[in-house]
Amino acid sequence: MNPSLGSVPSGPLTRRRFLKLVGAVGGTPMVMQALNAWDLSMSSTRDAPPPLTGDREGRRVIILGAGLAGMAAAYELEKLGYDTPILEARPRAGGRCITIRGGSEVRELGGGIQRCEFDQGHYLNPGPWRIPDEHTSTLHYCRELDVPLEVLVNRNPWGWIRFDDVEGPLSGRRLRQAEVLADMRGHVTDLLARSVHQDALDLELTPADREKLVAFLVHEGHLNPQDATYGGATRRGWATPPGAAGPGEPSDPHDFLDLLRSGLGAGFPPRWGPTGTVFQPVGGMDQLARALERAVSHNIRPHQEVKEIRQGEEGVRVVVQDTRSGDREEVTGDYCICTIPLTILINIPSDLSGDFQRAMRSVAYNPSGKIGLQFRRRFWEEDDGIYGGYSVTNRPWSGDGHISYPSYGWNREKGVIQAYYGHGGDALRVSAMSPRERIEHALAIGEAVHPGIYREEFETGISFFFHLEPYSLGGYSSWSDEARRNHFSRLLEPDGRVYLSGEHISHLTSWMAGSFESTWMQIEKIHERSGQEGGA
Amino acid sequence: MNPSLGSVPSGPLTRRRFLKLVGAVGGTPMVMQALNAWDLSMSSTRDAPPPLTGDREGRRVIILGAGLAGMAAAYELEKLGYDTPILEARPRAGGRCITIRGGSEVRELGGGIQRCEFDQGHYLNPGPWRIPDEHTSTLHYCRELDVPLEVLVNRNPWGWIRFDDVEGPLSGRRLRQAEVLADMRGHVTDLLARSVHQDALDLELTPADREKLVAFLVHEGHLNPQDATYGGATRRGWATPPGAAGPGEPSDPHDFLDLLRSGLGAGFPPRWGPTGTVFQPVGGMDQLARALERAVSHNIRPHQEVKEIRQGEEGVRVVVQDTRSGDREEVTGDYCICTIPLTILINIPSDLSGDFQRAMRSVAYNPSGKIGLQFRRRFWEEDDGIYGGYSVTNRPWSGDGHISYPSYGWNREKGVIQAYYGHGGDALRVSAMSPRERIEHALAIGEAVHPGIYREEFETGISFFFHLEPYSLGGYSSWSDEARRNHFSRLLEPDGRVYLSGEHISHLTSWMAGSFESTWMQIEKIHERSGQEGGA
Repeated sequence: MNPSLGSVPSGPLTRRRFLKLVGAVGGTPMVMQALNAWDLSMSSTRDAPPPLTGDREGRRVIILGAGLAGMAAAYELEKLGYDTPILEARPRAGGRCITIRGGSEVRELGGGIQRCEFDQGHYLNPGPWRIPDEHTSTLHYCRELDVPLEVLVNRNPWGWIRFDDVEGPLSGRRLRQAEVLADMRGHVTDLLARSVHQDALDLELTPADREKLVAFLVHEGHLNPQDATYGGATRRGWATPPGAAGPGEPSDPHDFLDLLRSGLGAGFPPRWGPTGTVFQPVGGMDQLARALERAVSHNIRPHQEVKEIRQGEEGVRVVVQDTRSGDREEVTGDYCICTIPLTILINIPSDLSGDFQRAMRSVAYNPSGKIGLQFRRRFWEEDDGIYGGYSVTNRPWSGDGHISYPSYGWNREKGVIQAYYGHGGDALRVSAMSPRERIEHALAIGEAVHPGIYREEFETGISFFFHLEPYSLGGYSSWSDEARRNHFSRLLEPDGRVYLSGEHISHLTSWMAGSFESTWMQIEKIHERSGQEGGA
Repeated sequence: MNPSLGSVPSGPLTRRRFLKLVGAVGGTPMVMQALNAWDLSMSSTRDAPPPLTGDREGRRVIILGAGLAGMAAAYELEKLGYDTPILEARPRAGGRCITIRGGSEVRELGGGIQRCEFDQGHYLNPGPWRIPDEHTSTLHYCRELDVPLEVLVNRNPWGWIRFDDVEGPLSGRRLRQAEVLADMRGHVTDLLARSVHQDALDLELTPADREKLVAFLVHEGHLNPQDATYGGATRRGWATPPGAAGPGEPSDPHDFLDLLRSGLGAGFPPRWGPTGTVFQPVGGMDQLARALERAVSHNIRPHQEVKEIRQGEEGVRVVVQDTRSGDREEVTGDYCICTIPLTILINIPSDLSGDFQRAMRSVAYNPSGKIGLQFRRRFWEEDDGIYGGYSVTNRPWSGDGHISYPSYGWNREKGVIQAYYGHGGDALRVSAMSPRERIEHALAIGEAVHPGIYREEFETGISFFFHLEPYSLGGYSSWSDEARRNHFSRLLEPDGRVYLSGEHISHLTSWMAGSFESTWMQIEKIHERSGQEGGA
């Protein structure tokens, strides 16, 4: 059915009014199609929760886990009248969306306890730390729950790159990333511009096309406009910057083959992850979790460890044990949304079916963790002019090699650097060190790009590894292609009355948007079903 | 004289300690050389005021103009004991560093008055609006005067581009800038990768080099890793983005020749101006001016229009007229720092020498102005996912064609767009319209990229043109190559006891950093001279 545009009321047909109209005629899927037809949509297919209506008072959806997925489920379902108890094993809500501050305690499997001694106002986000503008679902909750945002500077050309033991004279040298980026792109563009002139390209170009192509290459900003050759671009940094009296002196490029052979150009992502604007909540990522928590706090029951998940034709029964008193209790409901990480869930006794259990076991979880270091002076800003972004090394066991500078407290005193962010075997190896050794390890990595000063200005540090956290046992899900092919679709569907939700039930694994969008998908299914299944 | 590194005390030789040592031995210029030798320095040659010492109590430097250059001069010279009256014609300090808010009045030559009706918290910066991380002098004052900064999103790949009347099928179509950027770069890289395989390049590459070059091109993120060809990259935007259930569907690229012939790729700067992190003061650019004003307010004498500048062998004499009472007064001092824009200064009677006057007259000033529009809803964020940056059109008389979205109030209600930023003849033409016509003009430009919605969500607007401002008569100085060659060095030097300062006395014209660095240069000269010339 096509929406009749004849029915549009007078006045300009705005995009919003158009979508409203189409929605009125054709329902949600048609809105989505219309949206995509209107122009190349930046929006996720889900930039708002499903527009559900009806009143389900008396129905109960038991929610397991008070992380983002669980709290968002309660938040949305409660609007429709559902009773939504959230059973949470930890003493706190928020799941992996946490922020470590001065006074925070980090307790690890094995009994280790660290106490964070950061100054007030400084923090580390061990889990999610970035909200890309493309994650419309996450931004939806920030907007709806009034979470103030600020820009996170994701990349910075002035960040350092230093790679040891690579081929050629650039090995072990500290360079600005701008030097590598501008020189590689400049030399490569130079090569191409020569080929255009020599008509050596695999494309038929008219003389006018050729002229336009060279003009475009020059316009990109690397080539000398006079002869379309690369001799160094100011974006690689100045030898002497322009000032009051002088126009500035450009700097000389590195040799192309030296650079190419060093592998530096491919040594760090040219545009890592998000391409647009990236945000962080002001004050730490847990501000988002806390805003959700405030909205559903009356539903959250902390200290409730799930011991059994049982279901029949009529409903779900969950056995929980209070981690303080040891008392057991049964909670019953019509449906269950289970957001417990699969690392934990596969060990909870349940009558989930065999194929569902097999699908759950097909998903790997990546160990992951971070180290945050507080410095008494923002030398990266003051001395090096690096405001945000990261520097990168190829030191052994340096995780992704990134040393990420804070995007808050610009120009002020002190700062916390995300000094290590490791995954998989790297994270396992570093987490096997003692907390003190981990800090030493992180300091040694940072000394590669901030020699002399990194250790000198260091004050205090903390490390956090999700695979050592009892109720996480891993950083985030990691689907192999095979598991996606064979098992993903099974987990999208409920097993009886139990629906899974969380970053692991999405194609946005490890992102908060995965949690939100997976919850939106599942509550839509539950709501439709509960409408069919009739009264409580 | 070389600093002897043998004299370094024990402990790690930090960069800071090294510079301190070198400074102790060789003075400032040597510090600068050392800094440049240490590594490719990001810093301006001036990232702090000249380290002057001594006490000049009893000496007076008359400062003309309470803009950034004048206030910074007073701020620094006062530390050395100078008496530093600042004579300002306007009723207010700040010069061109201003912010328009609700309640602000804009008075123009010709008598026009506009009253700004923006909601509280919203503003337009008619003059400077960006602080690039490379402008260490500006950042120095933000740090020293505790001006809180936030990131200004300077570019955004999701911003729209729409060019009318260009060649081919893309004419008049609204595209995401990401589409143009990714497709142009992708197609060009594809071409180059083919040339590498065919050994058609003007460079001798070993097979290993060739492999590394293709690996780099793939690593840049546009080419398909399987065959190193371009078929659309996700950074151009998705047809369907990844979500809970689906992995996302990539979008198809535009045809290379369509794009090339349209000129869109060269239609907006790939990296406009600053390449690193860009800041703005929280709450408006005038927060920087106000912080300086607080520090020197006891020196500022507003409403004092300069009528004559006279000097003898012993000192300077400035005649001012109070713009309220009409009373005239003479102010005398040992030296004068004149920051009055040359558009104004050349018409003030003085005994400045002929060559100095000729040099002043060689400098052109660019008309410039902006239009700010307040909207009742941030549709660019909500509907289009554009958080900061700009969209661009090639509409006639659209200034630089940019429609810049606000980098504050993310995700909240309402917002002010910098809807027109024009220079030269464009600004003259638009400023010749009535205030109401200017707003209409700006709305028509914006409708090109936000059809239907731009006008609908519009609430109120304001325009500001510096060439219509009585004490500016222009936006910023604009040096021709010839004027630079023949006259710039003359204006760097004093004429007798009168020193010029401001953005026009720098190679950073139109930037606040030009004002600061030019002032730093001149106070150093005055201080050296006043030391030689002896007591008051």
